[in-house]
Order: sequence, then structure tokens, then C-alpha cells
Amino acid sequence: MNQIIDAMLTRRSIRSFKSDPVPEDVLKRIIQAGTYAPTGRGMQSPIIIAVTNKQLRDRLSVLNAEFMGKTDFDPFYHAPVVLIVLADKSKPTYLYDGSLVMGNLMLAAHSEGLGSCWIHRAKEEFETAECKEILASLGITGDYEGIGHCVIGYANCELPEAPERKSDYIYHIK
Amino acid sequence: MNQIIDAMLTRRSIRSFKSDPVPEDVLKRIIQAGTYAPTGRGMQSPIIIAVTNKQLRDRLSVLNAEFMGKTDFDPFYHAPVVLIVLADKSKPTYLYDGSLVMGNLMLAAHSEGLGSCWIHRAKEEFETAECKEILASLGITGDYEGIGHCVIGYANCELPEAPERKSDYIYHIK
Repeated sequence: MNQIIDAMLTRRSIRSFKSDPVPEDVLKRIIQAGTYAPTGRGMQSPIIIAVTNKQLRDRLSVLNAEFMGKTDFDPFYHAPVVLIVLADKSKPTYLYDGSLVMGNLMLAAHSEGLGSCWIHRAKEEFETAECKEILASLGITGDYEGIGHCVIGYANCELPEAPERKSDYIYHIK
Repeated sequence: MNQIIDAMLTRRSIRSFKSDPVPEDVLKRIIQAGTYAPTGRGMQSPIIIAVTNKQLRDRLSVLNAEFMGKTDFDPFYHAPVVLIVLADKSKPTYLYDGSLVMGNLMLAAHSEGLGSCWIHRAKEEFETAECKEILASLGITGDYEGIGHCVIGYANCELPEAPERKSDYIYHIK
């Protein structure tokens, strides 16, 4: 059994989390795995902002919901950890690079028994003055685009079954 | 030891391949792992075209090198397998989705003892009439953008050491 491929086949997006915190050492392993995603010319164009501060996590949730046109809705599904991936737009492969970081984070979370989900609208969020201020407060300069939020926590549901893959996913020219 | 995270930390891009073919069952496992990458709203916007046909593989190599302004250079580094990922531009998350498929393919290849590398210019390649003709010949309709080529084969070199991660990759707001 190839455990790596098995993890890919069994990982599912989770949309219901317990509020239990994620242990610091587990979180560190997941984030480190994210930084080892391949990047164009090895330029490491992304950055990861881990948010476990409840106040900021809740504020980002409200902001994110606003971009959905919703109120009284937590688009982070009560997950206690929000890992925001942004990438340096001056690198031509930034969008691909940031996506690969997101992929590693989600799979690494699954491998540690945690649920995760890619939550979009990070792009819109980090175009706001409020989020640009967060970057500035961290000393981050340069032109970064939000790629995604990887929300992480203990699943408050069974692992969903994978829907069937579409029949026209794969072509082989032999 | 978490084998999944370990695979992420040890996987490296390979740029020198033996011409030995990849066994069909191994290739199938890798490609299947690609199809299980998460996609926005589960819409499965990507497709994977596996090219093991030597004539087409060589032709794509020439075309790809042309976009680099090079001749007499194989941008696929002699890899016998080229997995082309394209994604349906009508889906808003297509670029992220296709990137996640690429990530699964590269990591799955590593987990099977194979080397891989993301080779760019798939976008430019699949804007040509010649490549659009390939899609048409496979019965693929719709507006697909080339995301990347995942070239795969047995490495003809030692696994390179990972360069250090940049010191300002991770921020944590507690």
C-alpha cells in the first residue's frame, strides 16, 4: 500500500469543524510541509500567514462572508486555524506556486488526522485596505495576491465519500 | 514518522531522466492520484492527457523549446512520460484546480520512486492550432487552458538536496 497515494484518495474537503485547537507541533509540521511545495525556478514566491488569533480569525470570517454577500455565516466553518497563502505577483508562476502550497497544506492536514478546506476570496480580501494593513503590520512589503485560505481543524463529521471522478478526466496517447 | 509529510519534504524536481519506460500500472496509480486533487465546488475542471507516444512526446518537446527560443534542447529532460494538465476556463477556479492536479501528480510520482518536474509553457502550447487539433482529435471540446506538463520518469541523477526555505516564508498571528 502506497500511503501517500492512499492519502490523496481519502482526503476530502471538510465543512464542519470542532472548535478544539490544533496542537502547535502538529500545526508546525503541516505548515512546514506547505513550504516544501515546488515553486517555479525554486523562487519560493508564496508566504503563509497562520491565524490562530480568535479575534482576527473571526474578523476575516466576517470580511470573507461579505464578499459572498452573506451575514451571520462563517465561511471558515468554525475551524480554529486559518492558514492564508499569498504569493508574490512579481514572479510569473506565483498563482501556480501558491496553489501547490495550498495542496500540500490540505494533504498534510489530512495525514495528521485533521480536516481542511480551501476557502476562496483571499484575493478579494487582500485587496482591501484592512488586509493590506495586516500585511504591513507584519513587515510584509511587495505585491502579494491572496491565493486561498486553508482552514484546518478536527472534523465535526464523518469523512465524506468521494464523488466519482468524471469519465472524461483522463486521455492516454500511446 | 508521517510518510506523507516526509514525501513532501524529500520530493525534488528532477531534470535528468533515464529513457526507461514507466510501467503501465504505476503510471495509472499516479494519474488516478491526480484526478483526486480537490477542485472548486468539486467541479473537476481539469483533464489529464498522458503522452507516452514517442513521436508526439518529441514533437511537443520541440514546440515547447520553441517557446523558450531554443532549438536542440529537450525541455522534458528525456523523460518518457509527459502528463499534460489542462483545465476548463469556464470554471472560475480552473487555474487553482489544475495546479492541484499537478501537485498530486508530482508527489505521487515521487511516492512511486519516480522523478518528475513541472514544465511550463503548456498555456502557450495549447493556444496553437496544432495542439488544438490534438484536443479535437481526442474529442475534447470546450475552452481548455494548458496548466502544465508533469514529466515523469526514472531519475538519472541523485535526488538533489532541498535548498533552505526562505526565512520569511511563515508568519503566525496568535
